[in-house]
Amino acid sequence: MSWQITRDDLADLARGATLLGTGGGGDPYIGMMLVQGVLGDGAITILDPDEIADDLFVIPTAQMGAPTVMIEKIPAGTEPTLSLRILEEHLGRTADATMPIECGGINSMIPLIVAAETGLPVVDADGMGRAFPELSMETFAVYGVHGSPLALAGERGERVIIDTGDDDRQMEWLARAVTIRLGGVGHIAEYAMTGADVKRTAVPRTLSMALALGRAIRVAREEKRSPFDAIQDTLATTLYQHVRTLFEGKVVDVDRRTTEGFAKGVARIAPADGGAGELEIRFQNENLIALRDGDMVAIVPDLICVVDGDSAEPITTEGLRYGQRVRVLGISTPEMMRTPAALAAFGPDAFGLTESFSPVELLASGEVRPTAASTLVH
Amino acid sequence: MSWQITRDDLADLARGATLLGTGGGGDPYIGMMLVQGVLGDGAITILDPDEIADDLFVIPTAQMGAPTVMIEKIPAGTEPTLSLRILEEHLGRTADATMPIECGGINSMIPLIVAAETGLPVVDADGMGRAFPELSMETFAVYGVHGSPLALAGERGERVIIDTGDDDRQMEWLARAVTIRLGGVGHIAEYAMTGADVKRTAVPRTLSMALALGRAIRVAREEKRSPFDAIQDTLATTLYQHVRTLFEGKVVDVDRRTTEGFAKGVARIAPADGGAGELEIRFQNENLIALRDGDMVAIVPDLICVVDGDSAEPITTEGLRYGQRVRVLGISTPEMMRTPAALAAFGPDAFGLTESFSPVELLASGEVRPTAASTLVH
Repeated sequence: MSWQITRDDLADLARGATLLGTGGGGDPYIGMMLVQGVLGDGAITILDPDEIADDLFVIPTAQMGAPTVMIEKIPAGTEPTLSLRILEEHLGRTADATMPIECGGINSMIPLIVAAETGLPVVDADGMGRAFPELSMETFAVYGVHGSPLALAGERGERVIIDTGDDDRQMEWLARAVTIRLGGVGHIAEYAMTGADVKRTAVPRTLSMALALGRAIRVAREEKRSPFDAIQDTLATTLYQHVRTLFEGKVVDVDRRTTEGFAKGVARIAPADGGAGELEIRFQNENLIALRDGDMVAIVPDLICVVDGDSAEPITTEGLRYGQRVRVLGISTPEMMRTPAALAAFGPDAFGLTESFSPVELLASGEVRPTAASTLVH
Repeated sequence: MSWQITRDDLADLARGATLLGTGGGGDPYIGMMLVQGVLGDGAITILDPDEIADDLFVIPTAQMGAPTVMIEKIPAGTEPTLSLRILEEHLGRTADATMPIECGGINSMIPLIVAAETGLPVVDADGMGRAFPELSMETFAVYGVHGSPLALAGERGERVIIDTGDDDRQMEWLARAVTIRLGGVGHIAEYAMTGADVKRTAVPRTLSMALALGRAIRVAREEKRSPFDAIQDTLATTLYQHVRTLFEGKVVDVDRRTTEGFAKGVARIAPADGGAGELEIRFQNENLIALRDGDMVAIVPDLICVVDGDSAEPITTEGLRYGQRVRVLGISTPEMMRTPAALAAFGPDAFGLTESFSPVELLASGEVRPTAASTLVH
């Protein structure tokens, strides 16, 4: 069933998308303001992926770049739709809908800007099921839909088309170079596909999941209920079944650099009461691995989310500050994101990590490697 | 009148193109081998720019990258024509002819590869009248024809299109980034234009000039005449009227780095007899400025050419070796390359030099600033 997003939904969506950004993905609140600007009192139609026509022509839209740059370099606002138009012209075919390639962070919002400007509907699905730092890290690619040709629009009207055939990593490599020279941010349209492709290759209903998570956290706070329970109850209705509290404490160290177009670094969290034990999180735009006293308790592609210790407000890696009281959640990804092919595209090895993937629900429950941090959320 | 190039012309053309490369431009001998491979016993038709139809549709073709990389990374051979086809597809129009964008170095040969493969004729003109390191340094751009859209082909079949409107420097900036990530070399088609545009914006008959120079040097050697006289006699029939010997001596120092996609450095030449005096040449792919004992004797866009002291064989900056006996020639460029607009595009300031342009025929004849090096060739 199709449904609609209005301006009243955007703050909740931004909150949920920040959670699914797992520390990165770019700030959806900037995207939210851009959507508000073009949407006004209108509404955006969201299509359920199970119900779209097999021949629906979908062109996903997104922003690429380092989140640390995106905060300082707010887009002019015309680039997202320009990227779609460039790809339409190149392909000689107009889109019937747009879609996120990434449901976490600002890329939950970019397709809404395009939709509000063009009147196109948005398919409720994406290719990352969270946020990832590279364009090749897509379930689309894993299951046979490739990113090329990619269209890239710059803030001064630059138009770039990149076609690397089936080689999505080369596409990422070249598009990243252009993005860096555009000042760190570029707007892209890529992974054009049919409705049948969406059903086969996309992670379904992740836009509605982001909205539901953000809304559940807010409503729980308003009703003085636990927002952590609300997160767990919401995820129980999705393909993201398992939630674990990996650690509670305060931020004691953040080492972050913006290098080669990425925000890379390490954050450390220690018990607020000064007790023993520490959680280390390593990130490349997104949180990649969490180690408690040296023992892995969660690893990509499972979600490692840092949230405020009381309100459960999600905190990005740019938002991490010394002394913040936080809770770190581990959330399981759907099975289609854990297959050998999926792990080859966006598992630990794709990020240069030497650790192998283990499901967070096994790691953090102690079934694989018990740790003192392993407790269920509440 | 149109004329033809066959395999027997290629070695002479390569020699002349190396001279016009002013130290850079990439090694035309590698290009020559590629032309020979596709041309066989065939012939390439060369069109005189004054005689082409005003509505002839011309797509120039070239290679971009650091000459130091080109030597190690020989192209697969299919990229030059692929770049033309990408641009044709993008524009929805097929080319009637190709043309060099740069008559010095390997880019004298790339259009011949395309011509040999496609059967297209080549227009006897270019947009640099020598070699320059950047795609925006074109008389085409100076006189109103812009490079965008540019098509770029990689050795693994990568296809990239870059359109920055009238901003040719931004086009260069983005294309350079892609080229670096392709391993340092990319093949491009750009500055698509009509025959009327060619007549208005191109430096005419530079391909025939390169061939005539290379042939004159060879024939003079065979006939035991001075190849330096032969260079001067040949140039006297072209728009490049003035030749000066800036220095004779041996190479005593070469400092060369490949950085940001360019070969940059300094060469020093001292008298072979150990006497006083020194010529310093600074280069960025091409030789940019020659200083004799600190006094400028030639500066870009005039040509600074290092040749063998006996045979007049041109020597690229990569070919410079300690102890080589060389002669350094200064050659004047045509007036259309010395206008204020032209100097803004490829004069000293465009290379970060603080010196102002002065014509080599005035500098090296002593009319502006006398130096002991100022002697006519022979």
